[in-house]
Amino acid sequence: MKGRLIVFEGGEGGGKTTQLARSQQWLQASGWLAKLQAQGQIQQLITTREPGGTPIGQKIRHLLLDHTDSEVVQDRTELLLYAADRAQHVEAFLRPHLAAGALILCDRYVDSTIAYQGYGRGLDLSLIHQLNHLATHGLQSDITLWLDLDPAIGLARTDRRATRDRIEQADLSFHQRVHQGFMTLAAQSPERMIRIDANQPEATVAAQIQATLQQFLHQWFGAAIE
Amino acid sequence: MKGRLIVFEGGEGGGKTTQLARSQQWLQASGWLAKLQAQGQIQQLITTREPGGTPIGQKIRHLLLDHTDSEVVQDRTELLLYAADRAQHVEAFLRPHLAAGALILCDRYVDSTIAYQGYGRGLDLSLIHQLNHLATHGLQSDITLWLDLDPAIGLARTDRRATRDRIEQADLSFHQRVHQGFMTLAAQSPERMIRIDANQPEATVAAQIQATLQQFLHQWFGAAIE
Repeated sequence: MKGRLIVFEGGEGGGKTTQLARSQQWLQASGWLAKLQAQGQIQQLITTREPGGTPIGQKIRHLLLDHTDSEVVQDRTELLLYAADRAQHVEAFLRPHLAAGALILCDRYVDSTIAYQGYGRGLDLSLIHQLNHLATHGLQSDITLWLDLDPAIGLARTDRRATRDRIEQADLSFHQRVHQGFMTLAAQSPERMIRIDANQPEATVAAQIQATLQQFLHQWFGAAIE
Repeated sequence: MKGRLIVFEGGEGGGKTTQLARSQQWLQASGWLAKLQAQGQIQQLITTREPGGTPIGQKIRHLLLDHTDSEVVQDRTELLLYAADRAQHVEAFLRPHLAAGALILCDRYVDSTIAYQGYGRGLDLSLIHQLNHLATHGLQSDITLWLDLDPAIGLARTDRRATRDRIEQADLSFHQRVHQGFMTLAAQSPERMIRIDANQPEATVAAQIQATLQQFLHQWFGAAIE
């Protein structure tokens, strides 16, 4: 068995977490998961996220997103903490589960670091690529779903939340640069990175994601399940 | 004013922490500190350490050295966490204090990462150099005092401690490789890295360190204070 890694990416307020949960439910309710398991194609369905996909990653996530602390997290500290979280996640979680044949839905991965720390914070892109490579040892997603939402709308959505984390508190121009980053990445890797128009109603977005997943499941497992 | 960074390095059980405290006391008791302050050469004397020299670094230190957690810290996670601690320490602590004219005594710095993660764990040395450069942005120590102790003796000393951290629990061959790393570094940079024979009695080691510090203080500030 060979697992698959499906990553959900995008800016703030784009509904990544909601849509990831909807996709999980759909894979179960539609019978896809049961069929793939019955045919010995997939061992189990797992959801995870970065940062915070491991116990150590959970602690790193608190360091990164906790905005009650008075100390300023330096840009390079932030970059290295994301990389440390990723190294642990890849080695202790993603690789063993993929090797065992899991279908993994992951909330954020390497593209977030490029968009947020590279385009958003302006850190050196070749450095970020080196760090991503160090952290992943070359593990890439099978597909990445980019939930593309106008950053002004996304920020307005997070404004309505009771508390916002350190990243959500950054200003609009930061989030516009992040958006530019995702646009560039999607243009560079059109086969791996699928743009989903997240400006649409939630149910429409969910349907578009399901159609995309269905298409890739056919492509990956079609011969075995049809 | 221009501060100075004096680093204490070495393997386990070599007395770094004790000797750093003795050096601090000697700089005060000998009158050196008062003289340098009176002549406007030094603003203050500060001690610090890696990991853990900042509030964020303290939390990273717990992640790194806590051995009660059942989760294995992956080698590359460890390397990146040390780098994150260092990036924060350099940017938020060392650079501002050096710019203000502090004389800083620091327990461990970049050489520890090369010796422990490079020689000890066998991680790629050029990668470690890149990460050290990313974390320090080129900030080097003015001198580094390497407290050189036979690793078997050092480990036996930490054996007598009530609790030993994750690094102290590694086996002798690991600590022998670390020792080899420090030897190599000292051979490569004889002007920056001063070997102190830590197999001698504590008071003898302290006296040798004081003589070394005195020599460098004369070299750095001689014209101003004599």
